[in-house]
Amino acid sequence: MELYTDEYFMREALKEADKALAISEVPVGAVVVCKNRIIARAHNQTEKLTDATAHAEMLAVTAAANYLGSKYLSECTLYVTLEPCVMCAGALAWVQLQKLVYGASDVQRGFSLVSTPLLHPRTTTVKGIKADECKKLIDTFFARIRK
Amino acid sequence: MELYTDEYFMREALKEADKALAISEVPVGAVVVCKNRIIARAHNQTEKLTDATAHAEMLAVTAAANYLGSKYLSECTLYVTLEPCVMCAGALAWVQLQKLVYGASDVQRGFSLVSTPLLHPRTTTVKGIKADECKKLIDTFFARIRK
Repeated sequence: MELYTDEYFMREALKEADKALAISEVPVGAVVVCKNRIIARAHNQTEKLTDATAHAEMLAVTAAANYLGSKYLSECTLYVTLEPCVMCAGALAWVQLQKLVYGASDVQRGFSLVSTPLLHPRTTTVKGIKADECKKLIDTFFARIRK
Repeated sequence: MELYTDEYFMREALKEADKALAISEVPVGAVVVCKNRIIARAHNQTEKLTDATAHAEMLAVTAAANYLGSKYLSECTLYVTLEPCVMCAGALAWVQLQKLVYGASDVQRGFSLVSTPLLHPRTTTVKGIKADECKKLIDTFFARIRK
């Protein structure tokens, strides 16, 4: 029984990434969890919405805040299949996220490439959960569009 | 005649900031200009939308992309009364903004506090336009809520 583990919720984020892949978006998915319940789920929709800021994390965070009726997600965990970019890390700081869990590292655009800490000081971070599966989806996507 | 100067468009951004102040939001305003036309205007709405990511810049950029039907704002200038934060700078990088003009510096949260360059390499930046007026609005707001 592995309910409520990081792996469990990352699998849900991966389901969102699958949805992105199915509509030819860069396959990144995210879920927001509060008290072991998923309160928001989203996938990258930059093409569909013609909005370069419509990353999975931004959409998930806004949906979660809307659900809770609170600007702050200080009792929430965000699971996302790819390391957040600087924009998303900045958003996670503003919402005072409790915990960030990401799958694959983003060696091109990941927020950890910036030496200044960008997350809220109280946010804890776990990385590498189901990293191979998360990365494989991304690689599949880019292999497909480069054909 | 001072049409189409940075000061002219910053005055329009200040009008947006005034609207924010009127509804007790942190008074930051922004306009997006393309070929000397304002194609989007927005003010901070974090309280109204219960969304810590609803900064003037994010709303203006999304509206401008929607108007143009393009993910990229590579022929656009964003005028904003306060120096963008890290999240907003990241968003401006994704949209490949041509030019950023801001008024007051944000010594607490401004993106320039991060030593890594966060904007797109092709984005040019002008700062300090109507800085005193921009800062005065912010100071007025915080003096009011601290009473």
